[in-house]
Amino acid sequence: MLIKDIGEFALIERFRRKIRTDSTVIKASGDDCAVLKFDKKRYQLFTCDMIVEGVDFLPGDKPELIGRKALAISISDIAACGGIPRYCVVSLGMPKNTTVKRVDGILRGMVDLAAKYKLNIVGGDLSRASRLSIDVSMLGIVEKKYLCLRSGAKIGDIIFVSGELGGSIRGKHLCFTPRLKEARFLVENFRVNSMIDLSDGLSQDLGHILEQSKAGAVIYEGLIPLSSQARNLEEALFMGEDFELLFTLASKEAKKLISMRQNIFRPIGEIVDKKYNLRLVDQRGRPRAIRIKGFRHF
Amino acid sequence: MLIKDIGEFALIERFRRKIRTDSTVIKASGDDCAVLKFDKKRYQLFTCDMIVEGVDFLPGDKPELIGRKALAISISDIAACGGIPRYCVVSLGMPKNTTVKRVDGILRGMVDLAAKYKLNIVGGDLSRASRLSIDVSMLGIVEKKYLCLRSGAKIGDIIFVSGELGGSIRGKHLCFTPRLKEARFLVENFRVNSMIDLSDGLSQDLGHILEQSKAGAVIYEGLIPLSSQARNLEEALFMGEDFELLFTLASKEAKKLISMRQNIFRPIGEIVDKKYNLRLVDQRGRPRAIRIKGFRHF
Repeated sequence: MLIKDIGEFALIERFRRKIRTDSTVIKASGDDCAVLKFDKKRYQLFTCDMIVEGVDFLPGDKPELIGRKALAISISDIAACGGIPRYCVVSLGMPKNTTVKRVDGILRGMVDLAAKYKLNIVGGDLSRASRLSIDVSMLGIVEKKYLCLRSGAKIGDIIFVSGELGGSIRGKHLCFTPRLKEARFLVENFRVNSMIDLSDGLSQDLGHILEQSKAGAVIYEGLIPLSSQARNLEEALFMGEDFELLFTLASKEAKKLISMRQNIFRPIGEIVDKKYNLRLVDQRGRPRAIRIKGFRHF
Repeated sequence: MLIKDIGEFALIERFRRKIRTDSTVIKASGDDCAVLKFDKKRYQLFTCDMIVEGVDFLPGDKPELIGRKALAISISDIAACGGIPRYCVVSLGMPKNTTVKRVDGILRGMVDLAAKYKLNIVGGDLSRASRLSIDVSMLGIVEKKYLCLRSGAKIGDIIFVSGELGGSIRGKHLCFTPRLKEARFLVENFRVNSMIDLSDGLSQDLGHILEQSKAGAVIYEGLIPLSSQARNLEEALFMGEDFELLFTLASKEAKKLISMRQNIFRPIGEIVDKKYNLRLVDQRGRPRAIRIKGFRHF
């Protein structure tokens, strides 16, 4: 049996079942970051993301943007947990005949983004590999009271997204701005019940919240903010790499947010009982079940 | 210009020069681990290592041993800084047609070794890749007073290694036991001036200590403990992957260690003025300069 036969999520589940952790681990695997004990008021967040040439970027993409993306996706994970990125290490696998110019560009992209986020690049590892691949591991800090997980959504919560969705593959995936400022605005001013970053498409990532929160959701086609780059709704639902925030607030908190007219945050639906799974209400008010699917590596 | 033209170390130096870190970073890049502020008495250690099929292991190697090695090399890095491994995340790049059996084997190798070292595997990332590659990022803890760096060797220090060197490629590199117990014994009972793990060969790794400590060294051919797997002295000097400890003690401390008859630790030479670089004294007492070289990816 091959991994493509069982799929990425069954594979992750296999890992999850076998891993044992001690009481200093608040949350292992299954969220945007692992959550570790740190001090009285704060947790440490720990996450890793690997990007590979031909999958997450193309050979012709600008090296600066490749380096930038490698860091940005982990910053986005830390933000989605409500935290602040602090340190990272970078493993770089490269073919021998990579040009120094390309490596310098990748490095520049990383260093510039790190400076912008006051993130310390503290180490790394270089390896020979057949194709360029970059793995970034990042540490962040989050105040205990601000920690956001996928598992906290409650029936009646309003579902929000930041920014616009869809069509990221036509450019945004390489130069998106991780929603750190926005996530910190949210946790500092609201009780955020659940949050995730949209890396695999709205349907699949909302699916993660629903699964971990044991809930269902109704979302409204007319409310989903489509990017000008998106060709259709399907791209927002099922294509990945938007790196926007998806989060839920109790209705009172939601009203407060809406009243602030921060138009980057838009309500798209609500959390309902688990038995409804995921439903999409079209522009004429007709509900239909939608499949929880999106980008998968295998 | 290609990276193979300038070589791995010039490339690392390029990284080092461009990276800026804040005052919470005690030591970035250039040692076995990055060293970060943690609490009053302890530092946090942070390291990453990528292993790639065809470079660090072969397609036919036992999956359990591949998974084991991926973790063991980072445990060895934490040990070389005097610390204790605590948490890791694992990024796995795999071709689609990888068998589930192989992945299960890799996972088993990792989980078993983690259990042995009370190490928490807390998360990971799966990616499609053209060849199997595994990147492990590990966090450890070290008491401030026990921290060992490459930079602390002093003229007159005695140089020691643990275990036996050379020929690791013929098996040991896949099933070595990281010298955590030994490193902790050393830091808890001795003032260890400098330490590194032998991953790239004695010459090159001792070279790192000499460079960072601005010192030279004389080592004695007759004192270098050769593994039964080693074909000759050159393998101990210039081949990598022994994953033994290389460390230096002031002569008083060295006498104490030698008197304890822990025959796993053997003196092989001493630290001298920088002007002597690295010298090897052969069995007839004749010194000769040896080149600081060893395994390089590029």
